[in-house]
Amino acid sequence: MDYRIEHDTMGEVKVPANKYWGAQTERSRNNFKIGPEGSMPHEIIEAFAYLKKAAALTNADLGVLPKEKSDMIGKVADEILAGKLNDQFPLVIWQTGSGTQSNMNVNEVISNRAHVLNGGALGEKSEIHPNDDVNKSQSSNDTYPTAMHIAAYAKVVDVVIPAVEKLKVTLKEKSEAFKDIVKIGRTHLMDATPLTLGQEFSGYAAQLEFGLRALKNTLPHLSELALGGTAVGTGLNTPKGYDVKVAEYISKLTGHPFITAENKFEALAAHDAIVESHGALKQLAVSLFKIAQDIRMLASGPRSGIGEIHIPENEPGSSIMPGKVNPTQNEALTMVCAQVLGNDTTISFAGTQGNYELNVFKPVMAYNFLQSAQLIADACISFNDHCAVGIEPNLPRIKELVDKSLMLVTALNTHIGYENAAKIAKTAHKNGTTLKVEAVNLGLVTPEQFDAWVKPEDMVGSLK
Amino acid sequence: MDYRIEHDTMGEVKVPANKYWGAQTERSRNNFKIGPEGSMPHEIIEAFAYLKKAAALTNADLGVLPKEKSDMIGKVADEILAGKLNDQFPLVIWQTGSGTQSNMNVNEVISNRAHVLNGGALGEKSEIHPNDDVNKSQSSNDTYPTAMHIAAYAKVVDVVIPAVEKLKVTLKEKSEAFKDIVKIGRTHLMDATPLTLGQEFSGYAAQLEFGLRALKNTLPHLSELALGGTAVGTGLNTPKGYDVKVAEYISKLTGHPFITAENKFEALAAHDAIVESHGALKQLAVSLFKIAQDIRMLASGPRSGIGEIHIPENEPGSSIMPGKVNPTQNEALTMVCAQVLGNDTTISFAGTQGNYELNVFKPVMAYNFLQSAQLIADACISFNDHCAVGIEPNLPRIKELVDKSLMLVTALNTHIGYENAAKIAKTAHKNGTTLKVEAVNLGLVTPEQFDAWVKPEDMVGSLK
Amino acid sequence: MDYRIEHDTMGEVKVPANKYWGAQTERSRNNFKIGPEGSMPHEIIEAFAYLKKAAALTNADLGVLPKEKSDMIGKVADEILAGKLNDQFPLVIWQTGSGTQSNMNVNEVISNRAHVLNGGALGEKSEIHPNDDVNKSQSSNDTYPTAMHIAAYAKVVDVVIPAVEKLKVTLKEKSEAFKDIVKIGRTHLMDATPLTLGQEFSGYAAQLEFGLRALKNTLPHLSELALGGTAVGTGLNTPKGYDVKVAEYISKLTGHPFITAENKFEALAAHDAIVESHGALKQLAVSLFKIAQDIRMLASGPRSGIGEIHIPENEPGSSIMPGKVNPTQNEALTMVCAQVLGNDTTISFAGTQGNYELNVFKPVMAYNFLQSAQLIADACISFNDHCAVGIEPNLPRIKELVDKSLMLVTALNTHIGYENAAKIAKTAHKNGTTLKVEAVNLGLVTPEQFDAWVKPEDMVGSLK
Amino acid sequence: MDYRIEHDTMGEVKVPANKYWGAQTERSRNNFKIGPEGSMPHEIIEAFAYLKKAAALTNADLGVLPKEKSDMIGKVADEILAGKLNDQFPLVIWQTGSGTQSNMNVNEVISNRAHVLNGGALGEKSEIHPNDDVNKSQSSNDTYPTAMHIAAYAKVVDVVIPAVEKLKVTLKEKSEAFKDIVKIGRTHLMDATPLTLGQEFSGYAAQLEFGLRALKNTLPHLSELALGGTAVGTGLNTPKGYDVKVAEYISKLTGHPFITAENKFEALAAHDAIVESHGALKQLAVSLFKIAQDIRMLASGPRSGIGEIHIPENEPGSSIMPGKVNPTQNEALTMVCAQVLGNDTTISFAGTQGNYELNVFKPVMAYNFLQSAQLIADACISFNDHCAVGIEPNLPRIKELVDKSLMLVTALNTHIGYENAAKIAKTAHKNGTTLKVEAVNLGLVTPEQFDAWVKPEDMVGSLK
Repeated sequence: MDYRIEHDTMGEVKVPANKYWGAQTERSRNNFKIGPEGSMPHEIIEAFAYLKKAAALTNADLGVLPKEKSDMIGKVADEILAGKLNDQFPLVIWQTGSGTQSNMNVNEVISNRAHVLNGGALGEKSEIHPNDDVNKSQSSNDTYPTAMHIAAYAKVVDVVIPAVEKLKVTLKEKSEAFKDIVKIGRTHLMDATPLTLGQEFSGYAAQLEFGLRALKNTLPHLSELALGGTAVGTGLNTPKGYDVKVAEYISKLTGHPFITAENKFEALAAHDAIVESHGALKQLAVSLFKIAQDIRMLASGPRSGIGEIHIPENEPGSSIMPGKVNPTQNEALTMVCAQVLGNDTTISFAGTQGNYELNVFKPVMAYNFLQSAQLIADACISFNDHCAVGIEPNLPRIKELVDKSLMLVTALNTHIGYENAAKIAKTAHKNGTTLKVEAVNLGLVTPEQFDAWVKPEDMVGSLK
Repeated sequence: MDYRIEHDTMGEVKVPANKYWGAQTERSRNNFKIGPEGSMPHEIIEAFAYLKKAAALTNADLGVLPKEKSDMIGKVADEILAGKLNDQFPLVIWQTGSGTQSNMNVNEVISNRAHVLNGGALGEKSEIHPNDDVNKSQSSNDTYPTAMHIAAYAKVVDVVIPAVEKLKVTLKEKSEAFKDIVKIGRTHLMDATPLTLGQEFSGYAAQLEFGLRALKNTLPHLSELALGGTAVGTGLNTPKGYDVKVAEYISKLTGHPFITAENKFEALAAHDAIVESHGALKQLAVSLFKIAQDIRMLASGPRSGIGEIHIPENEPGSSIMPGKVNPTQNEALTMVCAQVLGNDTTISFAGTQGNYELNVFKPVMAYNFLQSAQLIADACISFNDHCAVGIEPNLPRIKELVDKSLMLVTALNTHIGYENAAKIAKTAHKNGTTLKVEAVNLGLVTPEQFDAWVKPEDMVGSLK
Repeated sequence: MDYRIEHDTMGEVKVPANKYWGAQTERSRNNFKIGPEGSMPHEIIEAFAYLKKAAALTNADLGVLPKEKSDMIGKVADEILAGKLNDQFPLVIWQTGSGTQSNMNVNEVISNRAHVLNGGALGEKSEIHPNDDVNKSQSSNDTYPTAMHIAAYAKVVDVVIPAVEKLKVTLKEKSEAFKDIVKIGRTHLMDATPLTLGQEFSGYAAQLEFGLRALKNTLPHLSELALGGTAVGTGLNTPKGYDVKVAEYISKLTGHPFITAENKFEALAAHDAIVESHGALKQLAVSLFKIAQDIRMLASGPRSGIGEIHIPENEPGSSIMPGKVNPTQNEALTMVCAQVLGNDTTISFAGTQGNYELNVFKPVMAYNFLQSAQLIADACISFNDHCAVGIEPNLPRIKELVDKSLMLVTALNTHIGYENAAKIAKTAHKNGTTLKVEAVNLGLVTPEQFDAWVKPEDMVGSLK
Repeated sequence: MDYRIEHDTMGEVKVPANKYWGAQTERSRNNFKIGPEGSMPHEIIEAFAYLKKAAALTNADLGVLPKEKSDMIGKVADEILAGKLNDQFPLVIWQTGSGTQSNMNVNEVISNRAHVLNGGALGEKSEIHPNDDVNKSQSSNDTYPTAMHIAAYAKVVDVVIPAVEKLKVTLKEKSEAFKDIVKIGRTHLMDATPLTLGQEFSGYAAQLEFGLRALKNTLPHLSELALGGTAVGTGLNTPKGYDVKVAEYISKLTGHPFITAENKFEALAAHDAIVESHGALKQLAVSLFKIAQDIRMLASGPRSGIGEIHIPENEPGSSIMPGKVNPTQNEALTMVCAQVLGNDTTISFAGTQGNYELNVFKPVMAYNFLQSAQLIADACISFNDHCAVGIEPNLPRIKELVDKSLMLVTALNTHIGYENAAKIAKTAHKNGTTLKVEAVNLGLVTPEQFDAWVKPEDMVGSLK
């Protein structure tokens, strides 16, 4: 490979000749060969592009950066956002915990790319200095957490919420469609009194609705940006009014209602907003696990399971066993939930470990947050499209189970007393017969009375 | 020990002669000899007392229970709330996952105690039937989660929030008191540019303020009560209007704004409200860990640590080492945080495991929630009273560290340029001298200029 | 309450007149009013009794403590072990993270109790000094971790292993008893090829066997004792040979093969042995969850579940629904597993947080370890005695499900080809009929051939 | 893009014309668009290559597969191992929980590639059938867990252990090199009695040594292979002796001592071996966190921290603050530890969720295991090479702190008594002076006595 020589305060570094990054990026690339995950999430790089452009605009407005320089920085930022420089950000997550090296990566790429856009050659000294111009009025310590919030907020609002909402709507529609299907209830995995299949699904929709509310509750904290705090939160080297204005620019550029953080010390030294929002993602994972688990249990069979619903057959079954359809979407979704629960442990732990003016677990928090968010969103869409929308009741099976249920005896309590009702149920259980058979045999009711009194559809209440 | 014989549908059981509980409680006591924790949290028992009274009042209002029975139930419930029957609830947490046995424990005690209050003898059949009267319009499946919400809500509002608020106020006051004390900042544990001690503490206060907001955001979900759903959420065997009215009574009796759950199926089969609120407790633990950790590091020494603040000396130091004062309150608080993080894992896991119409991990969720809440509250009060209020700056040490800091060189950047400033810093670092000495030696500034330009108090910004 | 005045280097303290503890214990009692759990686990106090006696014996042997003093210390230690002083150890878990205050509690109680045993009056200065005599050649920093290891080791060996072993033996016996019962297999919750019920249970027994091996693998690390390291691991103020000899005494007194830690710095500053052993407890929890979950699913029903096995009916069912038996032991056990998983998060987190020469999360680690161990042991015994031993196959149900299974078609593959076999299965699935009916209808086999070729008992392999 | 048409039992699928995979892979690709992580870890694919080759060889040996077919399968397996088919395995982790689709992906690629190697054209029917030949005597249910164990075992033995060993050796060498450097000890972050820097580092090396032992203890369980259990563990459709022989082949091909699982039901339905080994990885993460945290605290400064050691300067410091060197390797390593702790939560949770004959959380377990293992290994190497090997003591600073320590007063206890010693220490603390000054001023010792008695080097014991 061809190299060029770049310098920084520690000396010379060989950088791949065709890359825009500089010495500091290259040092990091060499010093941190860690992990199988590939590089810093692209959402973080894009967020950096937004904030670099916003900072440049603000700096120009406040008179500390020439407009031409600001324009050039904005132009390269736009290229990053358009995906034109995707191969210029090679650094891994497991680097310095402040994300400094990724901030410098962006600074160096913007500096060098601007020079080339201006007609210069790569490797020459750029008129846009990575630190003095691109990083002006900034520090890694306030840019990286700002990028985290931009990326996390956008991911939640643009990706997670619509996906969960979509699945919630489907479950609600199913709940409505199934509202008259009376089925046996189950508590402790054991047969219980009946409810409708629609009621059962209404619980799933309600879980997601609560989860969405919880997630939205976390957005105000996440909308606060550290930018303007610089190195330790004091705003050293920023012009007056910078923090408020740069947040306004970011808000305008991204279309999301970002504001400057009310306390910059908290915003650098702690990442409780990330902890908070991920807590809501974790809650959604908890809900989704229950829903996916229920649905695969309801669909289990075809002969030796519960079998009350059918889910779509998406793939051929086993190579040995014809007719086998597995709840593969449920499995993918529940695996996602397991991942999100673990990510919450990582994020919470990382959140505790800030010291003094800085938390240096930023990249691992960003990585886990963005993974959880994307996983939940993708898995909800996948589960929705390939499973939930196609759920259909297995009406004969549902009816069969209701008909033979012993728990319907509860309806006789008010007519013949709890003790007599119990006698019927226990006899039927012992003999493996139906309630009706034994009720009549025992001489406690007539067949006509039984039919009149034991109506599952009257037992599902007014709460549907 | 003396026993009496009690019966249930499975036969005879020997019950301690002087206890109000009955056969079902005794069976559970014998079948679940698990764990070192002692019995079901008393907050759950008290919450049951509220809900049993509220149910009795509602049942009477709606004409399904005679007023005299309702009064008797209420009377015993009041005794439970007054702590007069504390030794009547022996069942452990590790019982049936619906908490059925604790519901029956309460039913049996109310039944038998009412009979005795009415002049009867313990062991006789009570006129207040545990199931038909005390448990009327209820099921374990809706009472236990109702008790969980009552207990959790009250604990959060009455205990946790005031305690955290108290510590927040102290930290805010310290922030104000320390607002003019300029000290060295630290990022990556390394010396950085200065800030005030007040700014540092303002970050702590801000963390708790955000935590309190997050916790309060979870209250609406927690205020929803399952009661009225009975066995599977359909409200089978409840009179019309029962669910709304019973929540109103509970609200009135407890003084907290409880309402009936909008979806009873969710309220029985999932406990996402507990997951949600505990998520906020966990966030507080994350914040408190950072705060307590910082404060013990700032107070470390007395000779070989950071030593910028003094914390109260509460206990004699080591038996070997005189003058040793340990940050014991910080240690208790950080251990509490570690516990809460683990409890969150337990609660989240338990939250995923609902099946069909019921989640049967209720007692373990209640136990962990109430432990976390009490621990955070107690530890905040303890840390506040025995540590935070007594924090004092070690002014000479703070000044010493600022004075010899190399990072103040940053102030010279705008006068002599970054490169010259760097030269001064590196020379001072190498020689172990001060910036001023080397700045003058290198002929870059005069002593007067140095004193005029390098003023830490000018570097702490407008963000204090 | 009556008080007496005790002194320490910080001045006077009022101590309850009838308690043996002294000033330092009382200060801790006042300064740490935290938590609902009650006091330090009694196992830790007992372990302290062992180690105080062992230290006294060693000190006497090595000539640094008069034999009479050693004898007196040993006498009180024996009283502690006999449970005669149980109300003398009031300190909570949430104290200083080194457990110093509990070490001093033991020192003070031994000192004062020895004086009373010698005929003195409580409140007089004891001839046995809490620090100079009882704590001789010790520091809180090496005694508390020693107590942790003694308590943890004994709990694992005396309590956990026998309990898990007991359940494993029962599951093995069931596996043997059920070895000829052919049942339908299930993968992805869906019907699969058959196996025997005995094979299914053999997997459970194997899980516990692997878990026991993993747990035993952790014992060597746990058998290493920190005692002899004193304040920072250097052994300052201990006589030559002390560390080895005191471990021998502890080994002799407890009957467990304790040895002195090969590296005392590790033994004070890290508690990886606790992390390691609890990791094995957590693995057991993972296994037990799977086992308990399977068994409750297999027992689900009676009419609308899987219903392949019967588990004992230990408690009356629902007050509304006669004949309802819930898998309550499984629920208790799975709740325990959820707790242990959370405890592992706490212990791992605490384990990371040692600093320099000391980890100050000792009590929270001890508390969680002992809780997990006791819970697993108790729950295994409870589950064994009240559920596992009584598991019986539901033979008619098992046969019914095997007979109607579509997956038996796999046996025809080698006779009529996969494609034809698949056609039979799909037709039977579509028509809701049996394989035999459709196989004959389609003209692919004769009834005689079907009976000869499709034998579930030939499909369960030689691996049973 | 060009497509060809492939068929399976559900009909036609369009597959990219130049890819070897078939219909089932393509269906999965379309149905599971989940996650940002890219595809199934390559280690799993390689492990599949080994097992497919081993199965083919065994099948040929046992006479159920023609030797030519076996050879062809082996030939493609070798190509996979040589990395020639890397772009043929596009499926993601979040698919069916049995990994069936990745097993089919490998089967399809081997089938089609063999046909092309034989001179055929891609898209024609291959003479090597993906199910009947490549998958012969196998099921996804036993191949995927076999691949997990092969990949995990090899990663632990070939990658993790050498990396951790390397760091352990470096720490041991540092311990030896620093064995005579007496420094102040710290407990509770507070000054304590002295030890040597070598002793401090010996604790780190000991932690890793214990971690390695724990990890090695888990290898026997991990060496057991499920292969031969097929669909549900019974070994249906495998020839006699297959399971033992195929494990021997895998052992021979990989060079690792794999054996057939003693209980195939456990091996399919539970993944406790993965839980167990990851528990040991988690323990290593706990240890590494403590080590990396200590080292960055010891290196903190340069002026306002602890500053007892120097670590290598690998990157230029802050753009604002010259001379700032951050402990970036420590930060990367501690972030890795945070990740591994979260991964353990995921793996444990997933491990609990097996049902009946199969655990369907296999891919998420494999993914997290391999990530943790690679991260620990890479981060250990990185931390070793870029930090640990370059650690040097800051001797003047170490001496300064020892000299002014108040805890050295402990050495006077035996000469002038604890009370007098305490008086000296407290006076020096109050006056900010040295022990010697106050000892002489108070008339308790002569300067000569002080120098003779207070020798830090005599306080570090024989335990170094």
